[in-house]
Amino acid sequence: MGRKAAIIGGGVIGGGWAARFLLNGWDVAVADPDPEAERKIGEVLAGARRALPMLYDRAMPAPGELSFATSIAEAVAGADWVQESVPERLPLKHKVIAEIEGAAAPDTPIGSSTSGFRPSALREGVRRPGRIFVAHPFNPVYLLPLVEVVPGPNADLSVIEAAEAILRQIGMAPLRVRAEIDAHIADRFLEAVWREALWLIKDGIATTEEIDEAIRLGFGLRWAQMGLFETYRIAGGEAGMAHFIAQFGPALAWPWTKLMDVPELTPELTAEIARQSDAQSGHLSIRALEALRDDNLVSILRALKARSSAAGAVIAAHEATLPEPEPEPEPGGGPMETLQRTVPIDWTDVNGHMNESRYGQVVSDASEVVMAAIGADAGYIARGLSYFTVDTRIRYLAELLAGETIRVTTQVLEGGGKKLRLFHRIYKEDGTEAATGEQLLLHVSLKTRRTCNPLETVAQKLDALVGAHARLPRPDASILLR
Amino acid sequence: MGRKAAIIGGGVIGGGWAARFLLNGWDVAVADPDPEAERKIGEVLAGARRALPMLYDRAMPAPGELSFATSIAEAVAGADWVQESVPERLPLKHKVIAEIEGAAAPDTPIGSSTSGFRPSALREGVRRPGRIFVAHPFNPVYLLPLVEVVPGPNADLSVIEAAEAILRQIGMAPLRVRAEIDAHIADRFLEAVWREALWLIKDGIATTEEIDEAIRLGFGLRWAQMGLFETYRIAGGEAGMAHFIAQFGPALAWPWTKLMDVPELTPELTAEIARQSDAQSGHLSIRALEALRDDNLVSILRALKARSSAAGAVIAAHEATLPEPEPEPEPGGGPMETLQRTVPIDWTDVNGHMNESRYGQVVSDASEVVMAAIGADAGYIARGLSYFTVDTRIRYLAELLAGETIRVTTQVLEGGGKKLRLFHRIYKEDGTEAATGEQLLLHVSLKTRRTCNPLETVAQKLDALVGAHARLPRPDASILLR
Repeated sequence: MGRKAAIIGGGVIGGGWAARFLLNGWDVAVADPDPEAERKIGEVLAGARRALPMLYDRAMPAPGELSFATSIAEAVAGADWVQESVPERLPLKHKVIAEIEGAAAPDTPIGSSTSGFRPSALREGVRRPGRIFVAHPFNPVYLLPLVEVVPGPNADLSVIEAAEAILRQIGMAPLRVRAEIDAHIADRFLEAVWREALWLIKDGIATTEEIDEAIRLGFGLRWAQMGLFETYRIAGGEAGMAHFIAQFGPALAWPWTKLMDVPELTPELTAEIARQSDAQSGHLSIRALEALRDDNLVSILRALKARSSAAGAVIAAHEATLPEPEPEPEPGGGPMETLQRTVPIDWTDVNGHMNESRYGQVVSDASEVVMAAIGADAGYIARGLSYFTVDTRIRYLAELLAGETIRVTTQVLEGGGKKLRLFHRIYKEDGTEAATGEQLLLHVSLKTRRTCNPLETVAQKLDALVGAHARLPRPDASILLR
Repeated sequence: MGRKAAIIGGGVIGGGWAARFLLNGWDVAVADPDPEAERKIGEVLAGARRALPMLYDRAMPAPGELSFATSIAEAVAGADWVQESVPERLPLKHKVIAEIEGAAAPDTPIGSSTSGFRPSALREGVRRPGRIFVAHPFNPVYLLPLVEVVPGPNADLSVIEAAEAILRQIGMAPLRVRAEIDAHIADRFLEAVWREALWLIKDGIATTEEIDEAIRLGFGLRWAQMGLFETYRIAGGEAGMAHFIAQFGPALAWPWTKLMDVPELTPELTAEIARQSDAQSGHLSIRALEALRDDNLVSILRALKARSSAAGAVIAAHEATLPEPEPEPEPGGGPMETLQRTVPIDWTDVNGHMNESRYGQVVSDASEVVMAAIGADAGYIARGLSYFTVDTRIRYLAELLAGETIRVTTQVLEGGGKKLRLFHRIYKEDGTEAATGEQLLLHVSLKTRRTCNPLETVAQKLDALVGAHARLPRPDASILLR
């Protein structure tokens, strides 16, 4: 694509943005005066390179180029997106935005990662305010899809819409916030929870660990897939939301939360929180915690993707835009290139080795690519016809690890009438053969659940493929199904 | 076990408790004056029967018996646990608790599902207050592990500890709340978030759907696996929590949340929330929403179980207490009974059919049961020896659906030296054969990654098994690996 993103401020958030853009094929230029910026961005990127590709069942595009600019102007020159992620001090944001504005092309979207300031506060003193907006992401930026997009008053809506399209292209879910307020939407909730948590610790009711357990063993699980209102709608039952509010409304008038006051963050309270947090999590380094978090998030997001639900629907929609391998036979008449992908964490055992049943998953996915290539695709299945697998043989030749890239080639051994016999080879990135998989499929009517011949269009494409593959060397009979 | 739980109040929460106890083998007696109670409990139970067994990779115990009592005294008689889940009105709770106390054995734990009242408020006027405590669960009670256990002042700690042991036995995670406060821990957070959400709607900033998206596409995913403090510890980086608080503390003093006021729940605001919720979720019935929620929760919980993380660690610990099938050969010399389990939702495609690669998972899990039976178990693997699968053949004979119970029998076809050849048959609940799976395993040293002979203890047990299985009819050669 050759598009460029300028990342101004290279902390955890800026690094997460850089990773999102880079791994989706954008070139990225980072501007940050911190001499440690390159190391810090490198660490975030390493985490993203490991985790993000595992979300998808297709290969991501080739990553773009990462560069470090010596000035904001240098980073911004020629950029198609500018993202500001400097610390939350308004005068600093104003200074940085002025520098960005001086160097950016007139219509380039300028997003700010601010978690609290309104767009109109960010725009004070700016010449072209309409293309400056809030694009507030959530850590880890390379995994969590949400971006709060706050246009604010007098925004250039054509810039905002173009910006939202770009966010979708890099796999994120822009949530348009129609009215500007301090802290947008999500951080208002986070702040309210944070305040209650500080009271619980200050009053000696609960420790950091007890608070975390109270969240992640209960309502945190609900909120990973439905939010507040859909959850309560269910609690209200068939009578609906009005019934729920009538039932639980009175409790709202009781002073269960600390409504009227904010605990002072004295050195003593700060030290107490730090002490409790050390007791809870101090046995793990921040890197280890990040890897744990990312593995969990990848597993949760993939679980939701399989159901096309909540954040999983965002991943699924993005995956559909990723290129598929070109399954046509190569000019030299080689086998089909059916799959290329990363081994995800949820396919592996606790030691990180790919579970043996997932070799079968890869083989079955590769067979589906062949089916689609001969026209037995989703539309064909919707017409009530498909191929069913009746026999599979898998030979395991090498172990595979989470995060490894694999590719699959497929040879049609037999095709015609009701039969389709495929031979897959799974390769590691270095070309080592990791497994072979043979599948015998039969063409069936989904209405009668009986075998039948495929439609003529499918039969013709299959014939052509069988002819092309007849010239390929055949696997030794000893490794085939009898 | 023959243990009995009395469920007083048969709404969504009481029904969830009933399901937890029943599906873990307890008898359950429900007392609820509502003539609809039996129907309502039946609906919750149907959801639980579908979802809960899918969490585990082993079969759950045979369910207990459900009965409906005509009085609290009848329900409570002979009960080993009493759970009160009547509406949140203190005089009603007092009346019900007095009736429970009059009929319960002296040491029976009496838990209250109250989301707001303190134990000392519940105990007013009671003769034996020490065994009455708060056991506050989260909806859906049959899937979410968290129970806030609040003993309160002067509790009988031996009763509390016995109660916590029972909660663990039914797969829950008791969180001891050391000091009693209104709303315990989690509901303080929920109330703070609910209040902010009401303001956002009242002020026209966001709709119910936008609020739900802001939660479930962002921090909700974080909170399903780490809580508030571990998440922020990571944000603080190597410098730790004190650094994080120093960095973000100032923002806490800014009035981003609606600190000082609670929005009045006028009929207009209630109607507006109901209207927005209908627009968001009205296309799905409550039953459909519940099924969606449960499928998502099962998928998330299983994803976390595979990592033994957060709520997944609770499921894994409970699963380890479930009985395994007895793998020894039957007296008549039949094959081994290696597996019995439910097909979980995350093993199925969007149509609910078990993905073909999961037949391989079942086959591989059954092989592990054989390995454990001949002594090639976790301890053996820790000593650096194991069996690796090198070849697998699977014949697909019938489709399997999410929620179906399956059992697997296994015949040793060949065993001795480095080789182990197993033949598995997967059966549906009605006895239909759903698949056969053959695996060739080789014994390896995990240090040299080369094949070698097993230790004598394993070899002897394998010999005995081979001898017993030699008398069984052998599968036809045409369905075996060549």
